Amino acid sequence: MAQQHLDPTDPLAGRVTGDALADYLRAQATEFLRALRLHRETGGTAANGSGPQGPGSPGDPVDPARALRRAVRRISGSLHTFRPLLDADWSESMRPELAWLSGTLAMEHAYAARLERLLLALHRLSGAVFPAQPKGATVGAAQAGGSGPPSHPAAPDRGNLTVGAAKAGALLERQLTLARTRAHSTALQALGSSRFHAVADNIAVLASEVPLVPTGAATDLHPHATAAQERLTDAVTALPLVTAGHPYNAEALIHGLSPDPAPHPQDTPWHQVRLLLRLHRYAREVIQGTNAPVDVRLLTAGQALDRHRDASEAAAAAAQAARTPRIAPATAYALGVLHADQRHEVEAARFAFQQSWQKQTVGTP
Amino acid sequence: MAQQHLDPTDPLAGRVTGDALADYLRAQATEFLRALRLHRETGGTAANGSGPQGPGSPGDPVDPARALRRAVRRISGSLHTFRPLLDADWSESMRPELAWLSGTLAMEHAYAARLERLLLALHRLSGAVFPAQPKGATVGAAQAGGSGPPSHPAAPDRGNLTVGAAKAGALLERQLTLARTRAHSTALQALGSSRFHAVADNIAVLASEVPLVPTGAATDLHPHATAAQERLTDAVTALPLVTAGHPYNAEALIHGLSPDPAPHPQDTPWHQVRLLLRLHRYAREVIQGTNAPVDVRLLTAGQALDRHRDASEAAAAAAQAARTPRIAPATAYALGVLHADQRHEVEAARFAFQQSWQKQTVGTP
Repeated sequence: MAQQHLDPTDPLAGRVTGDALADYLRAQATEFLRALRLHRETGGTAANGSGPQGPGSPGDPVDPARALRRAVRRISGSLHTFRPLLDADWSESMRPELAWLSGTLAMEHAYAARLERLLLALHRLSGAVFPAQPKGATVGAAQAGGSGPPSHPAAPDRGNLTVGAAKAGALLERQLTLARTRAHSTALQALGSSRFHAVADNIAVLASEVPLVPTGAATDLHPHATAAQERLTDAVTALPLVTAGHPYNAEALIHGLSPDPAPHPQDTPWHQVRLLLRLHRYAREVIQGTNAPVDVRLLTAGQALDRHRDASEAAAAAAQAARTPRIAPATAYALGVLHADQRHEVEAARFAFQQSWQKQTVGTP
Repeated sequence: MAQQHLDPTDPLAGRVTGDALADYLRAQATEFLRALRLHRETGGTAANGSGPQGPGSPGDPVDPARALRRAVRRISGSLHTFRPLLDADWSESMRPELAWLSGTLAMEHAYAARLERLLLALHRLSGAVFPAQPKGATVGAAQAGGSGPPSHPAAPDRGNLTVGAAKAGALLERQLTLARTRAHSTALQALGSSRFHAVADNIAVLASEVPLVPTGAATDLHPHATAAQERLTDAVTALPLVTAGHPYNAEALIHGLSPDPAPHPQDTPWHQVRLLLRLHRYAREVIQGTNAPVDVRLLTAGQALDRHRDASEAAAAAAQAARTPRIAPATAYALGVLHADQRHEVEAARFAFQQSWQKQTVGTP
């Protein structure tokens, strides 16, 4: 067991070997199976990934969909980072399946969260006053009930909105609720498919028996974790952090009216860093154990990148909605303001990442 | 003469009296007459306030309209700050006339600069690449030629813009060029009016004889200048500077979709500080002499507030254009993005002001 707490900056810290990886994978597989059982018991009502606490409540014990996604991401990430320690055939066959599952399970939650973000922004832009209660507790855009497709989200009151903002809100609600309903069905279908059962069977095996290569159990994990960290720091180095550190650099909106309908290519390296940061974090978990204290700065940087991704996708959804045929000019105007607002959120998130990264001394895992 | 350079932080610096005010007013009146003569010689072609260097080139010797505005603002400001030293009847009769003149002369330049700002922003938002040349040298939105109303501004090439951005640009160009042409006519009419001739005659008298009250020449100017400074610092203290100092606070756009069509009321105290800062600067000029080195930090703070005002008005113009009947949704969308972009410029300008003010130790004039 490597669940003891190691000082990551201590070069004399004990070797952590493939045994720890096996422990970690077993624990994550067990988590997956537990979440799957709970998910089936609750009839998949929470497949949107959010309980009453709203989306993103960390460690929510009543959210099996979220727990499923968490476990799948961790297994998938560990297979990637510690690939040479694991049976190659098994590993290569598992990875695309885990990616498919992770992607499929994430969509419904993503649409619900995106709608909530956009409706909250519309209210903020309309100068509407919100009760000072925790986010998600008042706005139930992601509160699904019953066992069918998600119920109509309880959208914020539109009384204070202008016609344009109200119409923009209604349009986004229609489009994103439709997308979310489809994602819900897709996720339910996926969870009932033979493809899923094959993955679940594989994970069930993993819960008791991790297919390490013969030398795997004794192999030092550090070089692999360090390589994951280096991939992260290399990618961060390539980011335009000097610009990002200058507030109001107006970079994020620079293609806001570009003819290119594709998502902003400038966002891609940031999304990439977000994924590499996650892999680094999981590698730390493998080595330090899941009970080790979280590196707050790593967490802050990760949250900034999550916000970056969310705002980027929300901005794209607003731009996409503005391409709906026959909308009123006032609706289009509100969507333009909303798009720009979310692109500024993108810029703000980059600034927040730069600030947190500056302070950061990433511990050697 | 008080044209010697006084250290404003030196409490033992010599008294500066009404004589210095008289010198200053005479100098400004002379400037006004010189600019007026030049303006008449050039046939009023530069009434838009911008020569080949574009709007806002400081100290541009070939820009009589700008020189006229400069002198009028300074005379008007000094009458305000040092009111008790001047003949009350004369002063009270002059002040509304100077305000009228200053306002009338400023409009054409303001519309030209607003259009240029908005077209540049549209290009930036479209990801269009600009040649790395000084602003105004490439974009001739404010280059008027001939002696009639301003010629059609040489707008930036729209080749790279989307349909929406191009249409938004064309709409703004049409509306703001019309407004500018009207302002040009109004300014020309004003300069030919008997009302103007009365003001000009008064200023001509001022160039030789300043109507100080009997005790005026010996009265210390410092208490009046200090009062002007205190009005400034009081108004700055009332600004939400803590918020402004947090980058990306998203305050400026908070009423971006508000049903209220009036300009953002949150901007008003900042506009007020801009005017008070200008009065403070002129009071310093009176006391230290116009040849004294400019306080760079005061200048920076003033530039931030100018930018705040310009962006605020540009954002309002974009919002106003979006209310044009029968525009295409793509046009309205582009105007929404543009409005939000300029509101973020407003926020950026507040941040810049906060940063410059923080460093600032306003010298006692």
